Amino acid sequence: MTYCLAIRVNKGLVFATDSRTHAGVDYVTTYSKMHRFAWPGERICVILTAGNLATSQAVINHINKDLEKPDAEINLHKAEHLYEVAHYIGKLSQDEQQQHAPAMESSKSRAEASFILGGQIAGKDPEIYLIYPQGNYISASPETPFLQIGENKYGKPILDRIISPTTSLEDAARCALVSLDSTMRSNISVGPPLELSIYQANSLEEPRHMTLTLNSPIYKSLQKRWNEGLKRSFNRLPRFDWEDE
Amino acid sequence: MTYCLAIRVNKGLVFATDSRTHAGVDYVTTYSKMHRFAWPGERICVILTAGNLATSQAVINHINKDLEKPDAEINLHKAEHLYEVAHYIGKLSQDEQQQHAPAMESSKSRAEASFILGGQIAGKDPEIYLIYPQGNYISASPETPFLQIGENKYGKPILDRIISPTTSLEDAARCALVSLDSTMRSNISVGPPLELSIYQANSLEEPRHMTLTLNSPIYKSLQKRWNEGLKRSFNRLPRFDWEDE
Repeated sequence: MTYCLAIRVNKGLVFATDSRTHAGVDYVTTYSKMHRFAWPGERICVILTAGNLATSQAVINHINKDLEKPDAEINLHKAEHLYEVAHYIGKLSQDEQQQHAPAMESSKSRAEASFILGGQIAGKDPEIYLIYPQGNYISASPETPFLQIGENKYGKPILDRIISPTTSLEDAARCALVSLDSTMRSNISVGPPLELSIYQANSLEEPRHMTLTLNSPIYKSLQKRWNEGLKRSFNRLPRFDWEDE
Repeated sequence: MTYCLAIRVNKGLVFATDSRTHAGVDYVTTYSKMHRFAWPGERICVILTAGNLATSQAVINHINKDLEKPDAEINLHKAEHLYEVAHYIGKLSQDEQQQHAPAMESSKSRAEASFILGGQIAGKDPEIYLIYPQGNYISASPETPFLQIGENKYGKPILDRIISPTTSLEDAARCALVSLDSTMRSNISVGPPLELSIYQANSLEEPRHMTLTLNSPIYKSLQKRWNEGLKRSFNRLPRFDWEDE
């Protein structure tokens, strides 16, 4: 499994991923699920991947190959709108899945993959999109300012409580780390290192990128303080009427 | 959907459920999912239900009917061990599911249900069991002191952080409420009122039982303080090195 999320606030975009992949429980490996493309001053794209690793890799390979073709009908550098990129990724994913569909079916495996795409094209607003395994896609909205793929449930309550369009970029990044931390504690199929990218709206500069292991000082300190804070909050909850106050 | 959980700590047992059921999103109703049976001084049984409502109701009806038969091979009052009750519930559930299997299959519906059983029989230890839709079952352990059925992911992180065998009964009950509260915020298929039962180990008395609506003072106050506590803890998380401290 995998857990990736993207947050869109007024000040910009935050992307976060774990990096554990597995084929069964007896083949667990580490792969980056965050793919960054930048043409500073022109456009920034970040793609997060979840699901079948072969499908995800094939899609990213195809994206890179299309970037080398000046006459490609569409590629990451040419698209006028980010939703066109979402459509393009959806099509690459579907093509790849269909190519292997009969073999996957006969081995009762699944080639499905989902993607999150985010970034900004000069002159347009920053955006994030979730691309379903079926190739269709949705964007975030002010009411739903974050998108998740993979193992999304454990880490959703804290996002629901904290994130709104006015959240600062750094608070959104901290919330993404807390969301990943809660997921990793409850589900061993999601694991470190974590990757975090923070994009400042309208900068059209490469996002600030970090890879955090369990020993990275900022992550260790965040984990420790969050755990202590939760326990303190828990101990301050109201007593039942039969308890001594 | 549904969310039910049971916690076993040294001091006793805690049971908690939501009460929302639905057949599609356009038929949402409220049903108790907590069924309590008590023979004070002899034995206490609490059964929580999730999944197909017809299957759950049929199993509870059958349990009640068997209690009226003094010559029943097994019933809730006769079983010598709680695991025998778990086996009995699993069998009733499977029998009921198989009876409707062809019709359910032809309408592409599912009759699956899961159960949590907990309680104490005089002379034995308090126990909790999770009974799978297939009829087999597992008990809790000191390392895994809680069991969940239904929509179990949103509310798991807080249980993972707080619950251990030495947690007090009241803290376990508060943690169950926080776990339900987080789930209700993130998933509309889980909804109030909440039911909570607290059983003191070796008392063999009826568990203390509460039905909590969103307006119940203890629940309102717990919800408010937890939300405030989380936000306070969040605001105390460490800054990134590029932020002004």
